Amino acid sequence: MAYEPKPEHKFTFGLWTVGNVGRDPFGNPTRDVISPVEIVHMLAEVGAWGVNFHDNDLVPIDATPAERDQIVRDFKQALDETGLVVPMATTNLFTDPAFKDGAFTSNDPNVRAYALQKTINAIDLGVELGATTYVFWGGREGTETDSSKSPLDSTKRFRDAINFLCEYVQDQGYDLKFALEPKPNEPRSNIYLPTVGEALGFIATLDHPEMVGVNPEVAHEHMSGLNFVHGVAAAWDAGKLFHIDLNDQLYGRYDQDFRFGSVMPKQAFYLVKFLEDVGYDGSRHYDAHAYRSSNYEDVKYFAKGCMRTYLILKEKAAQFNADPEIQELLAEINADDGTFSYLSEVYNKEAVGKLRSTEFDRQALGARNLPYERLDQLTIEILLGAR
Amino acid sequence: MAYEPKPEHKFTFGLWTVGNVGRDPFGNPTRDVISPVEIVHMLAEVGAWGVNFHDNDLVPIDATPAERDQIVRDFKQALDETGLVVPMATTNLFTDPAFKDGAFTSNDPNVRAYALQKTINAIDLGVELGATTYVFWGGREGTETDSSKSPLDSTKRFRDAINFLCEYVQDQGYDLKFALEPKPNEPRSNIYLPTVGEALGFIATLDHPEMVGVNPEVAHEHMSGLNFVHGVAAAWDAGKLFHIDLNDQLYGRYDQDFRFGSVMPKQAFYLVKFLEDVGYDGSRHYDAHAYRSSNYEDVKYFAKGCMRTYLILKEKAAQFNADPEIQELLAEINADDGTFSYLSEVYNKEAVGKLRSTEFDRQALGARNLPYERLDQLTIEILLGAR
Amino acid sequence: MAYEPKPEHKFTFGLWTVGNVGRDPFGNPTRDVISPVEIVHMLAEVGAWGVNFHDNDLVPIDATPAERDQIVRDFKQALDETGLVVPMATTNLFTDPAFKDGAFTSNDPNVRAYALQKTINAIDLGVELGATTYVFWGGREGTETDSSKSPLDSTKRFRDAINFLCEYVQDQGYDLKFALEPKPNEPRSNIYLPTVGEALGFIATLDHPEMVGVNPEVAHEHMSGLNFVHGVAAAWDAGKLFHIDLNDQLYGRYDQDFRFGSVMPKQAFYLVKFLEDVGYDGSRHYDAHAYRSSNYEDVKYFAKGCMRTYLILKEKAAQFNADPEIQELLAEINADDGTFSYLSEVYNKEAVGKLRSTEFDRQALGARNLPYERLDQLTIEILLGAR
Amino acid sequence: MAYEPKPEHKFTFGLWTVGNVGRDPFGNPTRDVISPVEIVHMLAEVGAWGVNFHDNDLVPIDATPAERDQIVRDFKQALDETGLVVPMATTNLFTDPAFKDGAFTSNDPNVRAYALQKTINAIDLGVELGATTYVFWGGREGTETDSSKSPLDSTKRFRDAINFLCEYVQDQGYDLKFALEPKPNEPRSNIYLPTVGEALGFIATLDHPEMVGVNPEVAHEHMSGLNFVHGVAAAWDAGKLFHIDLNDQLYGRYDQDFRFGSVMPKQAFYLVKFLEDVGYDGSRHYDAHAYRSSNYEDVKYFAKGCMRTYLILKEKAAQFNADPEIQELLAEINADDGTFSYLSEVYNKEAVGKLRSTEFDRQALGARNLPYERLDQLTIEILLGAR
Repeated sequence: MAYEPKPEHKFTFGLWTVGNVGRDPFGNPTRDVISPVEIVHMLAEVGAWGVNFHDNDLVPIDATPAERDQIVRDFKQALDETGLVVPMATTNLFTDPAFKDGAFTSNDPNVRAYALQKTINAIDLGVELGATTYVFWGGREGTETDSSKSPLDSTKRFRDAINFLCEYVQDQGYDLKFALEPKPNEPRSNIYLPTVGEALGFIATLDHPEMVGVNPEVAHEHMSGLNFVHGVAAAWDAGKLFHIDLNDQLYGRYDQDFRFGSVMPKQAFYLVKFLEDVGYDGSRHYDAHAYRSSNYEDVKYFAKGCMRTYLILKEKAAQFNADPEIQELLAEINADDGTFSYLSEVYNKEAVGKLRSTEFDRQALGARNLPYERLDQLTIEILLGAR
Repeated sequence: MAYEPKPEHKFTFGLWTVGNVGRDPFGNPTRDVISPVEIVHMLAEVGAWGVNFHDNDLVPIDATPAERDQIVRDFKQALDETGLVVPMATTNLFTDPAFKDGAFTSNDPNVRAYALQKTINAIDLGVELGATTYVFWGGREGTETDSSKSPLDSTKRFRDAINFLCEYVQDQGYDLKFALEPKPNEPRSNIYLPTVGEALGFIATLDHPEMVGVNPEVAHEHMSGLNFVHGVAAAWDAGKLFHIDLNDQLYGRYDQDFRFGSVMPKQAFYLVKFLEDVGYDGSRHYDAHAYRSSNYEDVKYFAKGCMRTYLILKEKAAQFNADPEIQELLAEINADDGTFSYLSEVYNKEAVGKLRSTEFDRQALGARNLPYERLDQLTIEILLGAR
Repeated sequence: MAYEPKPEHKFTFGLWTVGNVGRDPFGNPTRDVISPVEIVHMLAEVGAWGVNFHDNDLVPIDATPAERDQIVRDFKQALDETGLVVPMATTNLFTDPAFKDGAFTSNDPNVRAYALQKTINAIDLGVELGATTYVFWGGREGTETDSSKSPLDSTKRFRDAINFLCEYVQDQGYDLKFALEPKPNEPRSNIYLPTVGEALGFIATLDHPEMVGVNPEVAHEHMSGLNFVHGVAAAWDAGKLFHIDLNDQLYGRYDQDFRFGSVMPKQAFYLVKFLEDVGYDGSRHYDAHAYRSSNYEDVKYFAKGCMRTYLILKEKAAQFNADPEIQELLAEINADDGTFSYLSEVYNKEAVGKLRSTEFDRQALGARNLPYERLDQLTIEILLGAR
Repeated sequence: MAYEPKPEHKFTFGLWTVGNVGRDPFGNPTRDVISPVEIVHMLAEVGAWGVNFHDNDLVPIDATPAERDQIVRDFKQALDETGLVVPMATTNLFTDPAFKDGAFTSNDPNVRAYALQKTINAIDLGVELGATTYVFWGGREGTETDSSKSPLDSTKRFRDAINFLCEYVQDQGYDLKFALEPKPNEPRSNIYLPTVGEALGFIATLDHPEMVGVNPEVAHEHMSGLNFVHGVAAAWDAGKLFHIDLNDQLYGRYDQDFRFGSVMPKQAFYLVKFLEDVGYDGSRHYDAHAYRSSNYEDVKYFAKGCMRTYLILKEKAAQFNADPEIQELLAEINADDGTFSYLSEVYNKEAVGKLRSTEFDRQALGARNLPYERLDQLTIEILLGAR
């Protein structure tokens, strides 16, 4: 029973992932719509621990209050029956034409107000269902032409909205933190908060930075050709890795949302290694969907594959950490005789004087052996199972 | 004398820009080395206001103290003769093999110490020549294989170095602020602080964030296919636009450092418009170089072209701001009758109640006219001089 | 009446362009469906010369024969009323789930046969409406995983289909040539015939290469970060520029299909200059659509903008060709005293001997002045209307 | 002794690969120059079968005839001592400033003639040392500004040069074929023949297309974000896969030339599988170099790693082909009951009539099960050694 998902792995999927019907910009749906209840049962069958949703994944935007209540009851019952939890929720602020030029950053104050209202209601729904993390993906917050909006106004509007919602959550006494999800483009030509870093920088300007972190997504950073694990590490370093979206994607392409580890497995390996090494204990959330050519039987293979590959890579991370040849190389590479440990102490003039008078053998520093090809080849052989 | 550079425009060039000898990864130099003194005179001839440098652009890494002093004297005399100023300086922590695996983030504590020492000396030199901004481009801070370094260790080491240097500057009583320059890759496969956002996020974790800002570069953000003006706006919003590197670059390619505005002029237009609209009053620094096929006569056309294009675009930005049709469209797009101004006030339960009970006409919001094609076409016609 | 489109400019639009309803992968339509007849009238109003279509833009895939006939009658009447022509037609082999894994290259022989049948019918329809060019965009011909298909089998299947259809056209006596439209990805992760070059290479392997050319599209080559005019030149050089799709797109992003010249105007300038310089006399076809935020009023500005920008750039191309400073530089750069004209003659041993014994002054060749910065700055100033 | 290179594997390296000294655009060399003779011995030590070179890798551009002869003698002796062969040679038409604006496509007729002369001499040298394949990488054939050159003139000049050289080879009676190596950019902003396809299209316009094929390189296609194995398949399909350059590279970045399989191993897997499945029997040539941080000891690990990874992936390709579950899925996916085999026969009216009258069940075609997620996950598990 190797590589079987268990609750302690905290694998979660969005309703929109295994429930994706296979529409794309050039094609009609290839799979029938299935209900949230059916999705919950499918996720239970494949071994997931939790399920996440946008408000309108669960409750259609035009549902009556009575319909809403019935839907929520049915959904809760499915959760009860299956044991699945809802760790995260979010708002759909991108499908409806009302948001065609943004939600929190729309030029239209009515749209901004409507987006706030919709989010408040969606937060209530999420909390009702148990969510403790609330994700913000501002998919429509951006421009095609920078003649249409000032990026400064947009930033201010975005900040006002998040500040307001932080206050709302505190006011309600909710146990809920926010996670901003960056993306560089698609569906807008230029989305605000394009990368993990921009989100971290933005958080530092908020009224309640302690309530807000990030939700990095593999595919979104890969669209910009960025090293994902470096972005995740920046978030972790800042204490801001509140959630994570796992999937896969080739660099510099449309948003692909592929099965985790399926196109760039080496990058996935470093990611899993990082998360396991630092002891990240949040959800391993899959924001991916099966190929449009798949039927629901194949969708299950897709979902199981996402989790299996994670567990395979987790095993390899442990193998890397236990490999004597690798660890010996790392020890050699990181050797430190303590000569310069005085530089890590509190800054003082004496240290500067000592440093200034040190003579460095530049040639020797340049000649030092750094066996990184050897180290990387060992990594590849672990990855390929050839070691 | 239209489009003639004047001191108030604050146009500056690095010694390494017009002094670039035309070497590239596949080719030998095509231009002879010219001295810093000659470069200063060339810059004065083309109309620049200032000149910036890396320590080793001016003083070779192996110069004796006597040689150093003579070089600095000659350089100062050239500045005196021409009236050029030195607003910015920086350290070369990338050419020498000692830094082959990074400077502040090297795995080798000796290299990290040497990098600190070299930077302290370079700061002294920069301040001696009048610099008030000090740039850090960590071109070697990164990896080819993430097996070789922990990104968390690297972040910590980078932070320790910047913290130490902030203290040093304060200790010396220098009037100097720092500007971090992001870049995603090249010469390393993955450079730390890959985009403006990552730098902003990192600054928020420093001991003296008030001393440290960013130095965004057009080419570096374009390498990741990011909207440059959005990055600059994020820096401005955070009060961190301490310097800027102007040049041009196609998305998703090797570092091109082209003449400002020469390949993506519409993007350059929005940038100039932003800088002029917000009243940015720092240097307009060109970090670009002429084609390898140019001789020094053509290098002068290159330098003049950088400045002329800026001034042409500045004029167009003013034209955009004064165009009645455009301004009418913008007024219409941004119309606000104040209905929701209560949301901008201090958060309060009443506002939430009022918002919650508002009925929004979703269809009407979606149907609202947003004449962005018209607006963008007007922009294009201003850009092309057809309006 | 400057920059007004006229019939001799041969500006055409697809039904799917101005008729695009503003759906995208994350959002519902923002514009109501309008009929082909309405589109024809809109195109006439904005000044287009022609209209092109996929079979199902005009005739829904599930129309009865009677419905089809009525639709075609109405469409012809609209053409008569407006004077618009139909120079090009094509088949939709991508929207229906039947084509979820390709049409001509599907692994399923039934799908391949159905695709052939659908294309034959669509060719008949196109010819009936006057088309003399038939475009093939194989948007679903490709893979997400290369485990699923052999690229050799796919190439063979693609070739078989095109060969069959060439025979069909000849058999029917149609005056029709084919144009293959390359695209690298989206909606498939990897589409076959990804660039203009691949299409040219493929054509050379066909049974009737003389009947088949290419239909390059700005956006599609830009998705791969390629220089579009170089691709168009390769097609022209091979006698294969049978059609062209004009729009705009940033490099390395999802398929944007922006208004012509709206994001990378310098690249658009070289394209217009090329087409006008060589005397390309086919359609200037726009395969673009308005922003999702536009209503149909703004869609008209979009369509007019496509054509205006072309005409503005055409004027600038003429200005470039007439500029004495530029022409003098080009003459200097291309100076040829005829010394080596013997190398252009029929190959002969004597020429080789003469060449072998020539002494070249390598330093002089390397030192030659190439004033390309100056030349490019002059180009930019023409582009910006500053000259 | 698994994964040990043997002569039948035909692994070759360029002199410039393991002999690379670690210079890059921002840094000085980190490794000492070693002689061609030393390189040959190093390649023999690591197990290579052959060694390839540019003329000036072996003979400096300014060597006297006597020096040249001595160098060639020494090199031949090293080949004799080690048993290494020279299957391929090429010309350096990019390092010297003479070629700063191209070689065969330079605007300067003197440069074009010099490039021809240099190539003729280099062909003689290559043939003398046993080469039967001659590679053309036109690294300087391109532009930064398209104002400087007509792409049509350049194409014509390039074609004239290749035609001349084909005649030369025939005239000399050499057993030598040509392989064109595409690359999209770097060191030029836009290089002609940017992808495999463009090269195939160009070959079809030559006087002796039968003598000319392509030399695709992983890194070069990856720079454009293209699927490499699809490009290789197009070359194979056209009978034009005359040589291949193996290395690795992330999409959309500067030219990285990494160790084979080190960053995108899944793509490398499909490539090895393709080459082995079709029975490609040419050189497996590595055009890669070690990290700049490596010393020559690590360079050997790099070279061995290139070959080991190939052999590991070759074993996995065989495993994929022998896996019953995979083969059963492929059989199911490709099932063909022969109903439409009549379409593959010579075109005839009857077939068209039969096809036209066939009724297809569109819904059934769309509903067909395509278990590609399952298939791809099985592939990933083979790749990771988890199956």
